[in-house]
Amino acid sequence: MSHASQHTMPHHSVAILIIGNEVLSGRTREANAWFAAKTLFDVGCKLSEVAIVPDIHEQIVFTLKRLHQNYDAVITSGGIGPTHDDITMQAVSDAFDVPLLEHADTIKVMTDFYGEDALTEGRRRMARLPHGAKPIICEQSICPGALINNVYVFAGVPHIFASQLESVLGSFSTGKAFHRTEIEANLPESSFARELSDIQAQYADIEIGSYPGRCGNKPTGKICISGTDKTKIEHVKQQIETMLKDKQKT
Amino acid sequence: MSHASQHTMPHHSVAILIIGNEVLSGRTREANAWFAAKTLFDVGCKLSEVAIVPDIHEQIVFTLKRLHQNYDAVITSGGIGPTHDDITMQAVSDAFDVPLLEHADTIKVMTDFYGEDALTEGRRRMARLPHGAKPIICEQSICPGALINNVYVFAGVPHIFASQLESVLGSFSTGKAFHRTEIEANLPESSFARELSDIQAQYADIEIGSYPGRCGNKPTGKICISGTDKTKIEHVKQQIETMLKDKQKT
Repeated sequence: MSHASQHTMPHHSVAILIIGNEVLSGRTREANAWFAAKTLFDVGCKLSEVAIVPDIHEQIVFTLKRLHQNYDAVITSGGIGPTHDDITMQAVSDAFDVPLLEHADTIKVMTDFYGEDALTEGRRRMARLPHGAKPIICEQSICPGALINNVYVFAGVPHIFASQLESVLGSFSTGKAFHRTEIEANLPESSFARELSDIQAQYADIEIGSYPGRCGNKPTGKICISGTDKTKIEHVKQQIETMLKDKQKT
Repeated sequence: MSHASQHTMPHHSVAILIIGNEVLSGRTREANAWFAAKTLFDVGCKLSEVAIVPDIHEQIVFTLKRLHQNYDAVITSGGIGPTHDDITMQAVSDAFDVPLLEHADTIKVMTDFYGEDALTEGRRRMARLPHGAKPIICEQSICPGALINNVYVFAGVPHIFASQLESVLGSFSTGKAFHRTEIEANLPESSFARELSDIQAQYADIEIGSYPGRCGNKPTGKICISGTDKTKIEHVKQQIETMLKDKQKT
């Protein structure tokens, strides 16, 4: 499904499940899937799918099961705070048919941090993990994420999400970082579409994307070349630049 | 699945399908689902799901069928340009098992615009529509989007996407705009989680979201109240503010 899937590394196909009404109602611009996409690309792993769903129990459970079955790993974002709309840990537990339990070690860490009197019902909610899950500890929060089966449960707050991803990034690294380079074509996409397609057909392990741009009133194109082999990327770039020069002459 | 789904208006549940490797590889930050979420919220329609998939034919077809069956309407974004990675119109045709054909009226419009000699293979690609689809004409592009069954096929370029959405927005308007208001709580979420949950339980048609914030080193909360009834939103806001004041005293 992606270049990374050609390797037999752990987690070569990855989906992200964003949970939160605030994204679907336009209150909040999605940031974590974007951050993860960039971070995973740099360690040689490309996202296969992103799903954004509301804080609705059945929809989270259904989507989580689908992604868990279709991909090597799933990262969820959001819904692990203390309030009524934070229902991700319960949904993950139900998706794997295990109970959601207070995690003794986390309760201890939180008691040491807040003091016993301040361990409110809300905070105790955040110390619950699906039975059998491993806590994901990061530098930015005392409340853990969770790893159960192939599902990584992360917070929605961007700096905590980033820190949690950082703490498990080794499991996503294929050992072959992706690279990309771009060409600004001073021609409309439609004028070089066929030639670009012919070049793409020559390379199974290089991905060529073409995106429309605009220079003043004139339509132009941006061509993006990506893959794991920097030398080959450079070679393809030169081939495309030569093709574009020839086009401009005609 | 959303407040809007309580009405019997057209398109009360809507999903968006974003198609493009550039989003999943972190090259481009997703913008169209975010724009649509805000625009639809303002006309009383909340998104039920967003899916982001790569430029892979089977994955687009599979996801489109799933969303088409589960929701009243689907909006797709991206993949309708002239290059090899623009495969959305073919995928939509295959999802509905109809041929992808050149659209005579569009060919005529493009011939008038570009002149017959400049109607390249790439441009002809952009004049194809799934058989039976209606072209979606907008102010920002000569190449049409398409409406087939309950699926709206839009461009990925943000200003064209926005213009195409604008041109069909009437079909998404429930006649009851959503509104939202927010409260900055000077307390951590965990301290008012239970009381907020009790207030939410009193209102089926008001949605209360709670999001963590931070004031210096102190964790705080942002409470978002939304719904179609402005008076009720204001009432709930006052009820929450009173609750927070009581909390702060204790």
